[in-house]
Amino acid sequence: MRTLNVDLGARAYPIHIGRGLLERPDLILPKLRARKVAVVTNETVGPLYLERLCAGLRLENLEVVGVVLPDGEAHKNWQTLNLIFDALLREHCERATTLIALGGGVVGDMSGFAAASYQRGIDYIQIPTTLLAQVDSSVGGKTAINHPLGKNMIGAFHQPRLVLADTETLSTLPARELSAGLAEVIKYGLIRDAGFFAWLERNIDALRALEPEALGWAIEQSCRHKAEIVAADETERGMRALLNLGHTFGHAIETGLGYGQWLHGEGVAAGTMMAAELSRRMGWLGEEDLARIERLFARAGLPVTGPALGVPRYLELMAHDKKVEAGKLRFVLLRGIGQAVVTDEAAMDDVAVAIEAREKS
Amino acid sequence: MRTLNVDLGARAYPIHIGRGLLERPDLILPKLRARKVAVVTNETVGPLYLERLCAGLRLENLEVVGVVLPDGEAHKNWQTLNLIFDALLREHCERATTLIALGGGVVGDMSGFAAASYQRGIDYIQIPTTLLAQVDSSVGGKTAINHPLGKNMIGAFHQPRLVLADTETLSTLPARELSAGLAEVIKYGLIRDAGFFAWLERNIDALRALEPEALGWAIEQSCRHKAEIVAADETERGMRALLNLGHTFGHAIETGLGYGQWLHGEGVAAGTMMAAELSRRMGWLGEEDLARIERLFARAGLPVTGPALGVPRYLELMAHDKKVEAGKLRFVLLRGIGQAVVTDEAAMDDVAVAIEAREKS
Repeated sequence: MRTLNVDLGARAYPIHIGRGLLERPDLILPKLRARKVAVVTNETVGPLYLERLCAGLRLENLEVVGVVLPDGEAHKNWQTLNLIFDALLREHCERATTLIALGGGVVGDMSGFAAASYQRGIDYIQIPTTLLAQVDSSVGGKTAINHPLGKNMIGAFHQPRLVLADTETLSTLPARELSAGLAEVIKYGLIRDAGFFAWLERNIDALRALEPEALGWAIEQSCRHKAEIVAADETERGMRALLNLGHTFGHAIETGLGYGQWLHGEGVAAGTMMAAELSRRMGWLGEEDLARIERLFARAGLPVTGPALGVPRYLELMAHDKKVEAGKLRFVLLRGIGQAVVTDEAAMDDVAVAIEAREKS
Repeated sequence: MRTLNVDLGARAYPIHIGRGLLERPDLILPKLRARKVAVVTNETVGPLYLERLCAGLRLENLEVVGVVLPDGEAHKNWQTLNLIFDALLREHCERATTLIALGGGVVGDMSGFAAASYQRGIDYIQIPTTLLAQVDSSVGGKTAINHPLGKNMIGAFHQPRLVLADTETLSTLPARELSAGLAEVIKYGLIRDAGFFAWLERNIDALRALEPEALGWAIEQSCRHKAEIVAADETERGMRALLNLGHTFGHAIETGLGYGQWLHGEGVAAGTMMAAELSRRMGWLGEEDLARIERLFARAGLPVTGPALGVPRYLELMAHDKKVEAGKLRFVLLRGIGQAVVTDEAAMDDVAVAIEAREKS
């Protein structure tokens, strides 16, 4: 088992990574404020892992409330969030109850927001069961639900007390979702670690084959990078914005197609190619580096072009994005592999040409 | 104009109290991060004061988005909260937009929670227009909506950047609501200031007649007491619990009758009489002090007995209250006028007898 500490002062918490952590209630017990937990999962993950987790907790004489939500981004809304509140209130969960999120990013984001707002805030623990959630959405305290007019528009910053990333749960993950998670792993190399990017070029096949050593290392490095960034900038005013590499374009893709058509990581991969293309056109990124990025995404099983929405639609969708400040489009671009920067210097003409070059023809 | 500072370190904010503050955009401008504000009000307060506030803001070249909600505690729910989010998104409000709550406690609580969770947190300003909101719900950062199974069950701690208490707005407040606000004013005397309680005994008629000097002083003292308590204990683990004097019984009354039958302050007054009665039965409060409290509530136009729900129903409702920890009922009781304490020493027999003694026969 590998352990990282996310250093946030009074709200610091550990991330444990390893095989079989679902069956380690001893890691959970010291974090509880009462002998009652509510485990939130969904209809896909529940049948696979809920009982395994709950059995261990019950053996420790904990009272366990299970909440099973419908699966999918389409359900990341008020109605589903209310199912959690309904269960917590029906089962008389008090302020000292800890909520455990067992599932992917959607379960984590919704459970986190439920924990942030139930009785104005209760503790929660994340047990992410997808690669994407393990390397990204379980770290950093961002919680949210979607609104018909925008993704993740309603939420809170709420740090978990503990994250358990059980790599065994990836064995039941569809290949497409594994690839989507790899998009975020590759992102960390692109943002700030050229050495890790080169390591990924050598090990991408091992990762897709779920080779345990490679997987553990990739998750640890990704979490370390994100944890360092989050610790330095908890509320997203500066460095943390770098994590949004590919996301301005990516959100436009996800929204333009309707939530759930493309996976988040797929949107990020194609969006990152647009950001890289824009970086090249601004003279910031070399041809060869652009080609290396495209090759790695392709080998990871990810799209390297966006859907053909048309440039005007892309621009319109991006103007709705919450990373707009004072009406100006801010982008995260690359000044090389391992070196991302936030800028508002991109000319709209270049943005349009970059989108066009990376739209599916 | 009187000004108090709520000392919360990086989140400190001023409370201004005085006549005509609605028409003082100069107090608001320095607190804004962008030239756009969204003003949330309701169908009762809107026609009286919305245009007066907005006209001043527009003269300062601010873009102003107005959001008018249905009035009443019955609307303090998801559906109404979503009306705020719908408007913010439809009008492209960004993270730097400031939300202004113009209205009573319900508008303040909902707007505050909307501000806490819109894009994971934007700034907000409170302009409370009821006495209750001016002395209580606009101070302390508590925001929430109700759930069918309990009051204020979903919310956040989110501090305003500024509070403007315009005492002129009380001229349009129904007498019954003025009395309900006085219940909270009296509460501060009971909790920690015997001198203020005695001042209230001398000035209760002036307050009911909206005599400006008396009103200003009473609001300032109430806000000062609450601000001191909140500054010492922002997240309600210790001293802040004293503010809940009368609330455990009071919430039971409000829930038992169905939200909106009794005003919050009315529930608090009758609930405080039950707490005082229990204190007397435990030998903590003298007969004469109990009589003084009853007299002052009555002169303020408040109920001094609870509705006849029956003791078992009261106990059942209190067991659902969120101030239950580990299944034990905690109460705020009085060891004299001006001296409230939190205790779990009350015997259930005494609780039952106190309720019975203070139920309407």
